[in-house]
Amino acid sequence: MSQSATTAFAVPSARAGEVVAHAASPDGSITVQIRIGNEGHATYAISRHGQEVISPSKLGFLFADQPKWERNLTLTAQSQSQHDETWELPWGERRFVRNHYTELRIDLTERNRLLRTITVVFRLFDNGFGFRYEFPDQPQLKTVNIVEEQTEFAITEPATAWWIPAGEWSRYEFLYNKTPLAEVSQAHTPITLRTASGLHLALHEAALIDYSAMWLRRSTGQVLKANLSPSGIGPKVVRTAPFNTPWRTVQIAGTAGGLIENDLILNLNEPNALGDVSWVVPHKFIGIWWEMHLGLTTWGSGETHGATTERAKAYIDFAAEHGLRGVLIEGWNTGWDAEWFADGSTFDFTTAYPDFDLEAVAAYAKSKGVRIVGHHETAGNAALYESQLEAALDLYQRLSVDSVKTGYVSDAGGFRTIDAQSRDHYAWHDGQAASRHHLKVVLEAAKRQIAINAHEPIKDTGLRRTYPNWVAREGARGMEYNAWGNPPNPPEHELNLVFTRLLSGPMDFTPGILSLEGVNQPLNSTVAKQLALYVIIYSPVQMAADTIENYQKHLAPFQFIKDVPTDWGDTRVLNGEVGEFVTIARKDRGSADWYLGAATNAQPRRLDLSLDFLDANKTYQATIYRDADDTDYRTNTRHHYVIQTRTVSTHDTLTLNLAPGGGQAIRFTPQNL
Amino acid sequence: MSQSATTAFAVPSARAGEVVAHAASPDGSITVQIRIGNEGHATYAISRHGQEVISPSKLGFLFADQPKWERNLTLTAQSQSQHDETWELPWGERRFVRNHYTELRIDLTERNRLLRTITVVFRLFDNGFGFRYEFPDQPQLKTVNIVEEQTEFAITEPATAWWIPAGEWSRYEFLYNKTPLAEVSQAHTPITLRTASGLHLALHEAALIDYSAMWLRRSTGQVLKANLSPSGIGPKVVRTAPFNTPWRTVQIAGTAGGLIENDLILNLNEPNALGDVSWVVPHKFIGIWWEMHLGLTTWGSGETHGATTERAKAYIDFAAEHGLRGVLIEGWNTGWDAEWFADGSTFDFTTAYPDFDLEAVAAYAKSKGVRIVGHHETAGNAALYESQLEAALDLYQRLSVDSVKTGYVSDAGGFRTIDAQSRDHYAWHDGQAASRHHLKVVLEAAKRQIAINAHEPIKDTGLRRTYPNWVAREGARGMEYNAWGNPPNPPEHELNLVFTRLLSGPMDFTPGILSLEGVNQPLNSTVAKQLALYVIIYSPVQMAADTIENYQKHLAPFQFIKDVPTDWGDTRVLNGEVGEFVTIARKDRGSADWYLGAATNAQPRRLDLSLDFLDANKTYQATIYRDADDTDYRTNTRHHYVIQTRTVSTHDTLTLNLAPGGGQAIRFTPQNL
Repeated sequence: MSQSATTAFAVPSARAGEVVAHAASPDGSITVQIRIGNEGHATYAISRHGQEVISPSKLGFLFADQPKWERNLTLTAQSQSQHDETWELPWGERRFVRNHYTELRIDLTERNRLLRTITVVFRLFDNGFGFRYEFPDQPQLKTVNIVEEQTEFAITEPATAWWIPAGEWSRYEFLYNKTPLAEVSQAHTPITLRTASGLHLALHEAALIDYSAMWLRRSTGQVLKANLSPSGIGPKVVRTAPFNTPWRTVQIAGTAGGLIENDLILNLNEPNALGDVSWVVPHKFIGIWWEMHLGLTTWGSGETHGATTERAKAYIDFAAEHGLRGVLIEGWNTGWDAEWFADGSTFDFTTAYPDFDLEAVAAYAKSKGVRIVGHHETAGNAALYESQLEAALDLYQRLSVDSVKTGYVSDAGGFRTIDAQSRDHYAWHDGQAASRHHLKVVLEAAKRQIAINAHEPIKDTGLRRTYPNWVAREGARGMEYNAWGNPPNPPEHELNLVFTRLLSGPMDFTPGILSLEGVNQPLNSTVAKQLALYVIIYSPVQMAADTIENYQKHLAPFQFIKDVPTDWGDTRVLNGEVGEFVTIARKDRGSADWYLGAATNAQPRRLDLSLDFLDANKTYQATIYRDADDTDYRTNTRHHYVIQTRTVSTHDTLTLNLAPGGGQAIRFTPQNL
Repeated sequence: MSQSATTAFAVPSARAGEVVAHAASPDGSITVQIRIGNEGHATYAISRHGQEVISPSKLGFLFADQPKWERNLTLTAQSQSQHDETWELPWGERRFVRNHYTELRIDLTERNRLLRTITVVFRLFDNGFGFRYEFPDQPQLKTVNIVEEQTEFAITEPATAWWIPAGEWSRYEFLYNKTPLAEVSQAHTPITLRTASGLHLALHEAALIDYSAMWLRRSTGQVLKANLSPSGIGPKVVRTAPFNTPWRTVQIAGTAGGLIENDLILNLNEPNALGDVSWVVPHKFIGIWWEMHLGLTTWGSGETHGATTERAKAYIDFAAEHGLRGVLIEGWNTGWDAEWFADGSTFDFTTAYPDFDLEAVAAYAKSKGVRIVGHHETAGNAALYESQLEAALDLYQRLSVDSVKTGYVSDAGGFRTIDAQSRDHYAWHDGQAASRHHLKVVLEAAKRQIAINAHEPIKDTGLRRTYPNWVAREGARGMEYNAWGNPPNPPEHELNLVFTRLLSGPMDFTPGILSLEGVNQPLNSTVAKQLALYVIIYSPVQMAADTIENYQKHLAPFQFIKDVPTDWGDTRVLNGEVGEFVTIARKDRGSADWYLGAATNAQPRRLDLSLDFLDANKTYQATIYRDADDTDYRTNTRHHYVIQTRTVSTHDTLTLNLAPGGGQAIRFTPQNL
């Protein structure tokens, strides 16, 4: 090799260099420094209160048909602006969101040869930052074939990381690893870090549209590097300029709870593009679902078929009786009898099994004031689903079905999808083609005023702001693993989810298994914790996931599920540590009620809570669903709970005693109305 | 998701399963167990002396145009055979190699639907194993578009790992990481492990032909997983069946040195395909090279141009005077004056700079009995190189140039190459297209009886057995980093290389910088260590890398470089620990002489060596080049050395005292001839 070429290779030294641009967040706490190194590499570094959090980290791209864009760069333009607005969520964890940031735009242009310019836009919030690349319209880089994005995140301090591995063909359904950052291999985002000095960082992305999901691979030391989900048949991303990449985001907080209260992901998405979305209705639903996971009934046809007309009507009756809006019916359409999950080619999204009279069930639901929650399992065959999509959604629209759960179980064959060049192929479930597919489904659904709740989805990146009918997703190891998982979810699982997966957006975790029983394995939970999940795991669509027969046996605690809202005016995280415990209070958007959920891992825990979040001028009746004194998730005492009421006010302190693997759920109702 | 699909996802449990095939190496020490799990996943596990070394590890493939091949597998055929042969290396570390193994062939066929069969062939040696996939000719899998290979290596014991990161666009030139296996992110092979119980494993591959190089990504825990180098524009590998993958190899030894004495990689390559290769001549060479790295002269033209007729003749004179066969001349051809490394588009491989009279230099070399070592720097533009390849090699052939150093410095733009569908594109330097390119160059060179020594190459996988004109490669951080590297190579670097990179094959490390001086930075070495490198780092083409002016100043130690052979009859590793020290004895293939090299990291070391490798019936004069008593690589005493002679025999024990960062080189010459 030669000297001039290889000195460029010595990145660490190239990282040093002159600061050519810098900016600070509105209160000055978060700052960015842009440097150009000796070989013309551009780096960014982030400090918080003057302490470096992200060391100089590279920017750049590899292209399939052009030399890479990474060196010989100069700063050819820069500008700064301040933004402060407050906008309203049609539904959400809170009603109003403040979007307050400093924007730094820099144009980085090659000094010679191709002279390609890419604009990098940083938005600095007081609680984190995001940046994206903007590809302008320029003749020498018109069709952009991205082989890899070179973005780095060099974490300055040693840190503990909570993460799931990336690189598998499909799905995000893993137990979380808790390791030193130095033991991360390749992770999905959000990945949450707690640094040696106690700072909390969550790395993720916002507004993932027509682009490939970003995995983070540790190169060496504490440097995480973008690794875009592959396409399998071409460059990872193919776009025509002008276009923008998703935002690369880092939420920063002094406490774990601060990450949850951070609206940076939503703020970096575009405003509502759908206009009036009053037809998107947050709600709770039950469904023919858990019984299949228990093996009591089946998705496939025959004697054990779950989705029968009769069974659906029984669920509709129960929903009507208990005031739950929706009934999900899985396994209603033909195609489940072959080895369906091999490639999904057998599914017909408009043909019901003979023992399921869709029209009659829909009419019956309507007569009872209940909505069917539609179901489209694709087994990952998104290509086939797209070919039937309009007819399938038309059918549901005609039957007043206004929310659909989709599914992409692609373990057996793969995720079959169609890329930007209309090529039908197998690929990862979170590449550019998958991002296009999911948004296509959401937009087709929006035309018909239908909400989408995708399972085995591409990850959430806050697109609910722009497309409010994209109400929820799965995208993590959910409740069904408690039926048959080996192992089932451990007691810390939800405490990991709240501080990782949930940072990306609502999750259809399907809580509320009050029976606490899987297939010959109990849940690692208590009754009170199952209730608390409705508060701590946010979703505008919440399933009461147990069977109706089980709920009949547990009507007392079921009352909390009936009461708890799915749309909130405000949210406060009262305490919490990643993977250990959390307490969240949320205010009902439709009333003056507050709700509180607290949960712990295997450790019992006493939490002393100030109730100062309550309105100062009110007295509340607190209806408390708590673990009993002897409750323990490891024994049959997991079924023990206490329901009690207390009168409280904003001046009170409440002591919560959480059992091992337990939790607590409280409804606060104003009394002086 | 559904139960039946997701239980398949729970890989750890699926790993359990019935043993359906097993086999043992010739002496029984290495055994393989093949299991089929509940969902029809096939796994292999390896034990050594009854102790599991590799836990059940998955096999499989993801395809771009078909469902993945990984589950619903059954064993439809199996057979075993024994092989024992001894074959001769035309040049090498030893003359004869024993190839003694048990072969287990298993056909794994899908139970239903596509019914695709892939044969997996294991070869079990007493010191390791290899396996490959064989894709038979079957109509349902004729064109094979591989998106990813699912091969795992689940290392049973905790281990220390020596590795360099994979995933960068180009090159293998990193300092080695030494970390727990649990801190590996994504590594190139060979990756060397020392397990908690002291076993040494090296994971690599053999016979990488028309396929993508295998990186190893740690998924979680101690599981390393194949991650094929990407193509950028299509599936990672595109082949037409029938074809075989490269061998996935694990060398296993009780000692670190055992890895070096292991011929498994060569044994898993096909025999010599070139016939008479007596024209491949191991040799030493000097060249116009280090002076450019020092900045004394330049590759580009002008006042400082290094490759002038006059300068070349001076090197030829020196080579002739000192009996060195070759003279490398870099920077002789036009194209170095633009920012050449941006994309290599400026190079002309048949046009010399005006101040370099190629014909005259060639004639002068011939008159002096010296060979020009050709040079083709491509700056990674393999596509352009291929377009000029035949003319470039024809020119050299006409001028009696019988070895060419190629170069692929692609840091600035990327590695531009041509894939199996003739698409010119940028890609990683070690994907399928790169593997095709490098072999194409070697085969075109072979037609003209020219040997190839590729720098910034694809990794070595033992192809020198099949194509003996592929004499050496770089493929690791070489000597030039001591000129300008930040940091320069640390004293342990060569001790890492010997137990990692060198396991893959010969390396053109370019030792022998007897001046011990880079650009304002001394080498972390001693004179005696520079000499020892000629023995411990094997290559059939060895550069005396310093300038001729420097050698004139160090003629006494230079004598060892003049004497040391580059072709060996036998090799013995006398001791060693990865990254710490090593002593290797090699017997000259052309005489009865033995040579010994020893080197240490920063630690001074006393090594007591039995000389029992010497012929029992001979007395030898040992010419010893050793560190002086006060030598230390950290001070100017690095230049201190002692040359002495002793008379020794096989019964003697020799004590080597290696200075900090030092080494020792010995020539043993029989006296009673």
